[in-house]
Amino acid sequence: MGGTDQVRGIRRLPAADNAGDTRNHLPVEAVINLDQGDPTMYEAFWRKLEYECTFVIKGYESLSYFSNPKNPCWFLEPKLEESIKSLHGAVGNAETDGYSIVVGTGSSQLLQAVLYAVTSRDQTNPINVVSAAPYYSTYMEITELVRSGLYKWAGDAHEFDRDEPYVEVVTSPNNPNGVIRGAVVNREGGILVHDLAYYWPQYTPITSSLDFDIMLFTASKCTGHAGSRIGWALVKDKEVAKRMTKFMEVSTIGVSKESQLRVAKILQVVADRCKRFGSPEGDDFFEFGKSVLTKRWEMLREAVKKTNMFTLPKYPLQHCTYTGDVTQAHPAFAWIGCNDGMEDCEKLFRNHKVLTRGGRKFGSDPGFVRVSMVGREEEFIVFIERLASMKQMVNTNGDDAAANEKGNLA
Amino acid sequence: MGGTDQVRGIRRLPAADNAGDTRNHLPVEAVINLDQGDPTMYEAFWRKLEYECTFVIKGYESLSYFSNPKNPCWFLEPKLEESIKSLHGAVGNAETDGYSIVVGTGSSQLLQAVLYAVTSRDQTNPINVVSAAPYYSTYMEITELVRSGLYKWAGDAHEFDRDEPYVEVVTSPNNPNGVIRGAVVNREGGILVHDLAYYWPQYTPITSSLDFDIMLFTASKCTGHAGSRIGWALVKDKEVAKRMTKFMEVSTIGVSKESQLRVAKILQVVADRCKRFGSPEGDDFFEFGKSVLTKRWEMLREAVKKTNMFTLPKYPLQHCTYTGDVTQAHPAFAWIGCNDGMEDCEKLFRNHKVLTRGGRKFGSDPGFVRVSMVGREEEFIVFIERLASMKQMVNTNGDDAAANEKGNLA
Repeated sequence: MGGTDQVRGIRRLPAADNAGDTRNHLPVEAVINLDQGDPTMYEAFWRKLEYECTFVIKGYESLSYFSNPKNPCWFLEPKLEESIKSLHGAVGNAETDGYSIVVGTGSSQLLQAVLYAVTSRDQTNPINVVSAAPYYSTYMEITELVRSGLYKWAGDAHEFDRDEPYVEVVTSPNNPNGVIRGAVVNREGGILVHDLAYYWPQYTPITSSLDFDIMLFTASKCTGHAGSRIGWALVKDKEVAKRMTKFMEVSTIGVSKESQLRVAKILQVVADRCKRFGSPEGDDFFEFGKSVLTKRWEMLREAVKKTNMFTLPKYPLQHCTYTGDVTQAHPAFAWIGCNDGMEDCEKLFRNHKVLTRGGRKFGSDPGFVRVSMVGREEEFIVFIERLASMKQMVNTNGDDAAANEKGNLA
Repeated sequence: MGGTDQVRGIRRLPAADNAGDTRNHLPVEAVINLDQGDPTMYEAFWRKLEYECTFVIKGYESLSYFSNPKNPCWFLEPKLEESIKSLHGAVGNAETDGYSIVVGTGSSQLLQAVLYAVTSRDQTNPINVVSAAPYYSTYMEITELVRSGLYKWAGDAHEFDRDEPYVEVVTSPNNPNGVIRGAVVNREGGILVHDLAYYWPQYTPITSSLDFDIMLFTASKCTGHAGSRIGWALVKDKEVAKRMTKFMEVSTIGVSKESQLRVAKILQVVADRCKRFGSPEGDDFFEFGKSVLTKRWEMLREAVKKTNMFTLPKYPLQHCTYTGDVTQAHPAFAWIGCNDGMEDCEKLFRNHKVLTRGGRKFGSDPGFVRVSMVGREEEFIVFIERLASMKQMVNTNGDDAAANEKGNLA
């Protein structure tokens, strides 16, 4: 899950024609918004497949609430179910045999459906929801949104020591810091939800096909179609899947048919062109994503090194079963630590007209910020340029020129 | 809002080619599901406009979370906003000048957004949510879904006598019984939400352009595009609209772009072909809907009259500012009362393989059922045939042949 905050007052940029040299569009004083993980980086790839991926629906199609009344998840389009299975099979990142698939309006809604599904109206106290800090800032917002009596936010899983029932959200790779994670609390009766939004080959080496009880994915981070609001859950327990479906039924009476059908088409295109099936060079979506992110991470590490002001996580080299390469992670977000003495890293960036999300929102230190790596090329380049200019300005002002590496966050 | 329940085990029918003679498709023993208000009746109209209403989106379009960052409702597509305004202007059923528009994943989600927006995290007790019985069965489900500490279901507005803050949902025309309604509690400080899902010319005479504080509409019931899950709220208070937007942001990070853009196109087609602008015969969507529903209501009233077993609401004749005619309502649901002695009307229909929604779910009497009038033609015809057969069977069995009219529910 990527999340988004209010963006009032922020000037948006015209769509780039490609991910290449479009800097000229951007005024020198433009505010660069890297707060949200808006995955517009992928536009360039999808422009190349204009015809294969065009989705057409006639005025009389999909009027009904129902997609497949034979499926307990009666609003799931059969084509989407099929292409989700194809894609996981092609990538090898998650098992689907024996799982129920529940579709959601993004994976945020699916997390709420899980919380509803694993709790009971009869329980006396709300169940604790935890996640290891730094955690995705939206988990807390979701859990606390309407002050539910079924569940409550209990913060950092590392600090959870109550002898009470709990749900732990395990985000792997983690948002914000890209780290591969496992459960932290590990107590009997705990319920685990694996948010695997970023467990795709462009972001991290795929090391095994996962088979956890509840796994969440989203089109936003897989293919970049954030505007479609399509997430899916792979759920082992049929009763949990049914209760999740009930939540979606009351909450939104299902999920947009147009989005489901379009995403079905796109996921199938991605699955059919996977390199492991001998697809021609340039056709593999994940190769494209990985190559852009690899380049961006190199530029970022280079700039950070020169400034001597910031730290970045390091990721281990691992064999990726999808690409066949030994590679490190190139996450969708950079988790940037400011060196000692700079207390509010978000403010520092804001002063340079770069919007980031400060560490406190992730249950962490304000000396960190999360920066989106998946936005438009022109914005990313300006961000890198400003990183360099920050060095000069800070050095000139003598604010902080210390250069202590904060160590390996991974 | 129409709502839907589980439909496991119910055989669905193939799509009819038109709303005409397609009875042959339906096995004699087929279960007819008229529980949900699935608006498939409108397929026939949209088939005629195949080319005007075809929606096309390319693979690279609408990747971003954002639709219009200048709008407080940053995920609302400008084209949808425009066509919503056009349509209300053309129909004359609601004011839009000075209103904020908030889009939702159906109007169910918008009601949740309203409840979030008008309550406060600091309040000691949850606010009471009421609606006059018979009320739309989903309001209770929505309000109680996650045992919110912000709001709680307090039942029938007629019986609400506590001196406490409250939200009253006013559904007009009412679901299930098609009656035009106003607020019931009328106490100072009460918050009114007007659910106007059915305030369109095919269902009821349009008598004025409404200008309530919070008005909810949905494409499901306006044009029949229930699968798109698009609802909209017209909201007078900008701060309420902003808080509703915040709810949508956390709950689902916005609303499907594909659905918004497709519904925008369809609403604009409807607006452009409104009879009042001199559109040729047969092009007016509302005229089509009204003519089908008028015919169905005539068939239903005729069948009910012959059985001597049931009652139907009567609706006053009123001048419709849209059509210019003096006409009565032809609601999307029939609220059928069973005559004295038949205690469980839903069961009676179920025994004849017709699924309806029993009165108890609407906070009313089990001697009533709600029956969808907006389904496929072939199903409606079988329903009417079974009504007749019910008479014979019940008469033969001597269960109940009394014929007391229950009076005018309107």
